[in-house]
Amino acid sequence: MNTSAYTPKQILGIDWGTSNRRAYLIDANGACTLRHSDDQGMLAVRPHFAQSIEDLLAAMGLPSDTPVIASGMVGSAQGWHEVPYLDASVPLRKLPQHLLRVAPDRFIVPGYCQRGEDIDVMRGEETQLLGALALGHADGWVVLPGTHSKWVLLRDGVIQQIRTFMTGELYATLGAHGTLAPLMGGPESEAAFAEGMQAARRRAPLSNALFRVRARVVAGAMPAADARSFLSGLLIGTEFVAAQDASDTIISIASPALQQLYATAAAQFGLQLDGLDPDRVYCAALARFFD
Amino acid sequence: MNTSAYTPKQILGIDWGTSNRRAYLIDANGACTLRHSDDQGMLAVRPHFAQSIEDLLAAMGLPSDTPVIASGMVGSAQGWHEVPYLDASVPLRKLPQHLLRVAPDRFIVPGYCQRGEDIDVMRGEETQLLGALALGHADGWVVLPGTHSKWVLLRDGVIQQIRTFMTGELYATLGAHGTLAPLMGGPESEAAFAEGMQAARRRAPLSNALFRVRARVVAGAMPAADARSFLSGLLIGTEFVAAQDASDTIISIASPALQQLYATAAAQFGLQLDGLDPDRVYCAALARFFD
Repeated sequence: MNTSAYTPKQILGIDWGTSNRRAYLIDANGACTLRHSDDQGMLAVRPHFAQSIEDLLAAMGLPSDTPVIASGMVGSAQGWHEVPYLDASVPLRKLPQHLLRVAPDRFIVPGYCQRGEDIDVMRGEETQLLGALALGHADGWVVLPGTHSKWVLLRDGVIQQIRTFMTGELYATLGAHGTLAPLMGGPESEAAFAEGMQAARRRAPLSNALFRVRARVVAGAMPAADARSFLSGLLIGTEFVAAQDASDTIISIASPALQQLYATAAAQFGLQLDGLDPDRVYCAALARFFD
Repeated sequence: MNTSAYTPKQILGIDWGTSNRRAYLIDANGACTLRHSDDQGMLAVRPHFAQSIEDLLAAMGLPSDTPVIASGMVGSAQGWHEVPYLDASVPLRKLPQHLLRVAPDRFIVPGYCQRGEDIDVMRGEETQLLGALALGHADGWVVLPGTHSKWVLLRDGVIQQIRTFMTGELYATLGAHGTLAPLMGGPESEAAFAEGMQAARRRAPLSNALFRVRARVVAGAMPAADARSFLSGLLIGTEFVAAQDASDTIISIASPALQQLYATAAAQFGLQLDGLDPDRVYCAALARFFD
């Protein structure tokens, strides 16, 4: 944290997303000594970010001059301060040199932007990636599944590729609106999930493959109850098909439920998915901010 | 119409979709002598289809024993009677032999199903395709743009491939819900449409390409006002990329606005799009039902 003249005894890190936030207190040894999570995401808090941090510190019994480092959508144009994206060529290990100081003892981690024809961006995941790097994962694909699944290819701790898939968002939106929505009432089915993955391998454009979920049902080739898991397999399978250049092992940073789903998918593609615990990864990243 | 023992003097054809219907009165010479359209689609009418036809005939000043041939979603499980799909191998010219008689003087045209790995279906478009065939278009790609854009490859009047793209539905749904919705306020832009087409050529999975619409905006590479036309170009371009095996000329059956949009897209792919008027095509199909 080169923007501060002293080495603090502890840091509060906040993974501050659109709808939720998670806070972690890290001591100078890099140990996480306190955790907190709530629904005070960017949308709920804005524009009162400074006050919200004061309240959070008080609720956690921490002094108000505790250094706070926030990552995620808090650094977007809709957040506290828009922090310019770093270029993908900036090594992850240099992230601590690029924090934006937005108030005394308050810092925001910049996201990354991949420029050129295949523009892609991240805000928040860069901190998870720094944590993965700190835990020894400097090369290969790292996947962060979710509403906007991120696939990031690292080489020696430098971002080579960012691919964001609106997997979770499409699953939720198509489940609530339009042609597929009435088919989304079924239970989870491993077999239907596998069939959806298989459909993804055929590489039909998704706008076509999505219609064919319904076509399978109305043509009597699939029970309506299977459509939900099939759709999930199709969307997640699409991510794996796009990463067919992946080495044998992929690192994932995911909740246990998503880790299990993605590990099942990876196995069908002959890949090994090694899961890292998101909390552990975040704390490992925060420890780097003491350097 | 082999299901009827006499040759009628006129037929009322109804293109009966989910939300709207269009009716055409055809005389024995194949001339369209009367037209009508209203919002009494399948959802508004069901389950009172028979009565709705009586009312329509009365409103058009026609005798109640006028033979009526309906196509479209009226033949689906949610419609009047579920009419089994024909297999794609059945030549279009044989459609008149496969009408389902659901009541005296009342018939429904069956849709088509493409079976196998790439299951796809149509209901209503088969009648348009019969019309295109009647007008001399027995070979090559026919595109019927819309909520669910159909691309159909014909050879000697037999369906070789059906590809349905949820183009219109995705455009509407993503414009109303989720990450892209706040970006959809801009005016139409030919340049942004062309850029979206260009993005489609890169063949990134749509779940990725859709996120990158937003990434372009937040990274400052595209004005937010351009996102709507870019999305339109991306979705329509995806259809053309999938049909890169197309011969130089494609037939389209579309409203003037969609015809213009798709012709612009075709030109960017070095293809010629010849438009057929949907009403003319439908009437040409109806005339075949006298045979």
